[in-house]
Amino acid sequence: MSLIDALEWRYAAKRMNGKKVDASKIDSLLTSIQLSASGFGLQPYQVLVIENEELKAKIQPAAFNQPQVVESSHLLIFAAWNEITEEKINAFIQLVSETRNVPLEDLKAYKDAIAGSLLSRPVEDQVKWMDKQVYLAMGTALAAAAKLEIDSTPMEGFIPAQVDAILNLKEKGLHAVLMMAVGERDESSDFMVNAKKVRWPKEELFIHVI
Amino acid sequence: MSLIDALEWRYAAKRMNGKKVDASKIDSLLTSIQLSASGFGLQPYQVLVIENEELKAKIQPAAFNQPQVVESSHLLIFAAWNEITEEKINAFIQLVSETRNVPLEDLKAYKDAIAGSLLSRPVEDQVKWMDKQVYLAMGTALAAAAKLEIDSTPMEGFIPAQVDAILNLKEKGLHAVLMMAVGERDESSDFMVNAKKVRWPKEELFIHVI
Repeated sequence: MSLIDALEWRYAAKRMNGKKVDASKIDSLLTSIQLSASGFGLQPYQVLVIENEELKAKIQPAAFNQPQVVESSHLLIFAAWNEITEEKINAFIQLVSETRNVPLEDLKAYKDAIAGSLLSRPVEDQVKWMDKQVYLAMGTALAAAAKLEIDSTPMEGFIPAQVDAILNLKEKGLHAVLMMAVGERDESSDFMVNAKKVRWPKEELFIHVI
Repeated sequence: MSLIDALEWRYAAKRMNGKKVDASKIDSLLTSIQLSASGFGLQPYQVLVIENEELKAKIQPAAFNQPQVVESSHLLIFAAWNEITEEKINAFIQLVSETRNVPLEDLKAYKDAIAGSLLSRPVEDQVKWMDKQVYLAMGTALAAAAKLEIDSTPMEGFIPAQVDAILNLKEKGLHAVLMMAVGERDESSDFMVNAKKVRWPKEELFIHVI
């Protein structure tokens, strides 16, 4: 299936059948998230990969009882950092140094550029920026899931503070931004299975300037 | 090339060689953007597809003179709406009705759900939400470009007010959120061409709860 066909095939599944998705497919999905682009390449988030059924059941009421939360194979919680610190940037620069085999002192200008742009912002603006990086990762993850023929549901509809509390995210320095239920669509109970995809026509969505 | 291989292959090109990308590939890229997920499926943005060289040159200083702006084949400007109005939601519901051949009156609950969630928010919060939908589309677009073996550069680094003014976005009810330079990497001048991709190791990026 081409990526375009996969994107046509995908939809936000409203009901899943509880079947487990192959571990190798889940691993590929996580690799795609790992490879997602982000500002400065910083990836200021972590992703919780939840298979525990009791925990999913605990989360469900915080997500307005949406059934996919418990009917999923894996529930992914995309959680951004609560703050960008110099320590985090140092850890990232250390990673760049090790990955590319470049001495730390040669990365000073790069580090200063990142720190100059991000550390000067109020924490609220840092969070706004980090939350947007999570959406970018979700865009990558949804495309990858479709290509792997895994069903998925991106979810904004939950009460972040409740999810943060259930998962002790605050003490991990994180806050929940988006969820992604991953599994297999339930053809028999999902009223959206056969619904035609609704999209703005290209002549409305795109403005060509030649 | 698998999608994972394509995501490995992609990087934020710092220099491009000005070659034009095939129109059919650009069309596939735009289709992937059109197919991107968004909250309620609303896609509260438009994308300007700029091939005009003079216009690119005008935009370049507003993007800190980054060379890809003028060296790109196509410069995409992702611009979100400035406000979510009842009119916009009505137009969307009309589109749902036509696409799925469902009478408007059967979509009242759906319309009320969207309106209830979005119209009640202050415009500033609407914009925050819409800007995040743009990042999600960018995640899809970057994955699609890579799969099509088109080079691209996602760009946050520009002065939105200047770009809005150059493109008369305000009178279109839009504001620039992200740019994407699309073209072909210049192997000879881009110092990043051979740089190893830096990513948090999986054991740091993912938290498994089994």
